[in-house]
Amino acid sequence: MLIKERLFTPGPVPLPPQVIKALGQQIIHHRTPEFTQIFKQVREKLQKLLDTKRDVLLFSSSGTGAMESAVLNFFSTGDKVLVINAGKFGQRWKELAETFGLNVIDYSIEWGKTYSREKVEEIVKANPDIKGIFVQQSETSTTTYHDVDFLGSVSARLEDCLLVVDGITSVGVYEVYPEKSGIDILVTGSQKALMLPPGLSVLYFSQKAEKRLEKSNIPRYYFDVKKELKKQREGQTAYTPAISLIIALNESLNLMLEEGIKQLAERHSLLAEATREAVKELGLKLLSESPSNSATGVYAPEGINGDELRKILLSLGFRVAGGQDHLKGKILRIAHMGYFDFNDVIQVIAGLELALNKAGYSVELGKGVKKAQEIIIKNI
Amino acid sequence: MLIKERLFTPGPVPLPPQVIKALGQQIIHHRTPEFTQIFKQVREKLQKLLDTKRDVLLFSSSGTGAMESAVLNFFSTGDKVLVINAGKFGQRWKELAETFGLNVIDYSIEWGKTYSREKVEEIVKANPDIKGIFVQQSETSTTTYHDVDFLGSVSARLEDCLLVVDGITSVGVYEVYPEKSGIDILVTGSQKALMLPPGLSVLYFSQKAEKRLEKSNIPRYYFDVKKELKKQREGQTAYTPAISLIIALNESLNLMLEEGIKQLAERHSLLAEATREAVKELGLKLLSESPSNSATGVYAPEGINGDELRKILLSLGFRVAGGQDHLKGKILRIAHMGYFDFNDVIQVIAGLELALNKAGYSVELGKGVKKAQEIIIKNI
Repeated sequence: MLIKERLFTPGPVPLPPQVIKALGQQIIHHRTPEFTQIFKQVREKLQKLLDTKRDVLLFSSSGTGAMESAVLNFFSTGDKVLVINAGKFGQRWKELAETFGLNVIDYSIEWGKTYSREKVEEIVKANPDIKGIFVQQSETSTTTYHDVDFLGSVSARLEDCLLVVDGITSVGVYEVYPEKSGIDILVTGSQKALMLPPGLSVLYFSQKAEKRLEKSNIPRYYFDVKKELKKQREGQTAYTPAISLIIALNESLNLMLEEGIKQLAERHSLLAEATREAVKELGLKLLSESPSNSATGVYAPEGINGDELRKILLSLGFRVAGGQDHLKGKILRIAHMGYFDFNDVIQVIAGLELALNKAGYSVELGKGVKKAQEIIIKNI
Repeated sequence: MLIKERLFTPGPVPLPPQVIKALGQQIIHHRTPEFTQIFKQVREKLQKLLDTKRDVLLFSSSGTGAMESAVLNFFSTGDKVLVINAGKFGQRWKELAETFGLNVIDYSIEWGKTYSREKVEEIVKANPDIKGIFVQQSETSTTTYHDVDFLGSVSARLEDCLLVVDGITSVGVYEVYPEKSGIDILVTGSQKALMLPPGLSVLYFSQKAEKRLEKSNIPRYYFDVKKELKKQREGQTAYTPAISLIIALNESLNLMLEEGIKQLAERHSLLAEATREAVKELGLKLLSESPSNSATGVYAPEGINGDELRKILLSLGFRVAGGQDHLKGKILRIAHMGYFDFNDVIQVIAGLELALNKAGYSVELGKGVKKAQEIIIKNI
């Protein structure tokens, strides 16, 4: 029987038809007024997305490349930094910082939980000389939201501290306005709420961070921010850009700005709430105590292997993600960021009901769907 | 009047329809057997292209990223290396090596010329302790071919020296077989003879080079070869790969392998010869004394600005490249690498004849075309 595969993974996410169309075109050259015009538009639209007049830079790399650029360009070897380490990507900040010789204070947090304000205050009091606080606004591995406004206020109080935020699964999901939140460095990637294939990453940095560009002593070349800043202000890039992705980003940013950033955040909030309430209605337990609106992590029922349940879901047409590292086999992660509407949520919840029953965990068919519908109807 | 724009720039080059079709598709997830299968096929096809059984790694970056990886993973700070610096990309090797603390012997060569064997022997005799020789097999900025076999034999004689070759505009243009030529590290990029959009780069390294992976002391993370080697052998990547480009690469490698690497090299040789002889027939002077088969660099006629001539060519439907740095305004670079056939060459030569006449440099119409045809007809 025909069963169409649907992508509900937290990156890559489905591409809108406008993006697919932009990708499936003959290439244009990048050293042309035509490309420069598109590139300038893209950078201006990214500024609108982040509500800033400051430069937003693009790298031809996955999100990890932009994360690396944040360490390489704004810190020096020996700098003491605090890493909020609450999942696989928190761990990545730690690894990156240590690889390039920073002195990491590792605030390790149980996966699925967020940081404690008291603990952060305590660390900062004992270490007023920290040069940076690294965090994920949305930790994809645990589907957890970490509040960045509080960290922004803490960072601002310190003498010379930058708040460095991985916004890879928060930008385009929330209203992420770095200037308002006191974020000094913000990175994101293309294959999440920007609704593109992977291969493009984005970097914002504050005026305070910009001063560090002169001081940082870590060697860099491909991810050199000063060099890119100069070139990108001219509508070009230091090295050959991922042309087709940039052209497609112009399209996806149009979709996002036409919807409106506030409306886009409200939609994600609604889809996330409907998903969470529906899975709880089915008797399942959420992974996160501070759930992100980008994806919902949920434990497989007692006695059922999460990866087996995922296989059944896939056989029914739904590709969701599992757990990473010690959560492997224990959880499902259902994405709802980017090109998703409420009907998609209803569909995956119905699929989950079918899959749970097929896996031997009996749930009343339609129960989760009804719950999702009740939440949705109040908002449409 | 309708005039269609045709791309004759040395990267990006035109995409074949099979590639465009592969790009214009809904995204698939990378942590799937489906992607792993494609990824393994791509890596095997790259091995066929390079006639090797050794690992060929992919990075989500432009070619410069793979160049950086060659420095970061196989050298240590203080290592003495020889850079054959004969153009913009030779200069890039030098900058990369110096950025990461290598001790560069800069063998600067006039743009458009290749190295002298005697001079290389001399340098190597005075510096038998060099750890690497860096070169472009095809220097795109000067359309110059540098023989790598000789350098391979020189490198092999030394105690612990790696030959590092930028093959960005040679792989897929020539038969590039690193094991046969004694190349230890070879990099290439997607937007040249691989006929893809930019954003993907390729790294080959020899067994001799692999031993350096344990010794190199330069910090790296995004471009970490050991980490990628482990993951890519499993059919995955350390960080999210440029999925759509890899799927498209599978298509373009099919085209290349179906044609045959020898045939592909012969085609490029023919297109290059026809272009060179045609422009000489028109009274123009070649830029390079050792011209590459990827693109032909030619001086604008005395008294005519090269960039003005390019503008006229563009108005007639042909986008060719100009000169970089001190060659700006002096030369044209006409590409014939990747998805080009002899009719394309004939077309651009005819266009050049029209443009030269419009620019005030009188040439007999059809003269260059005839010369190109004479060369082509002997080979078809």
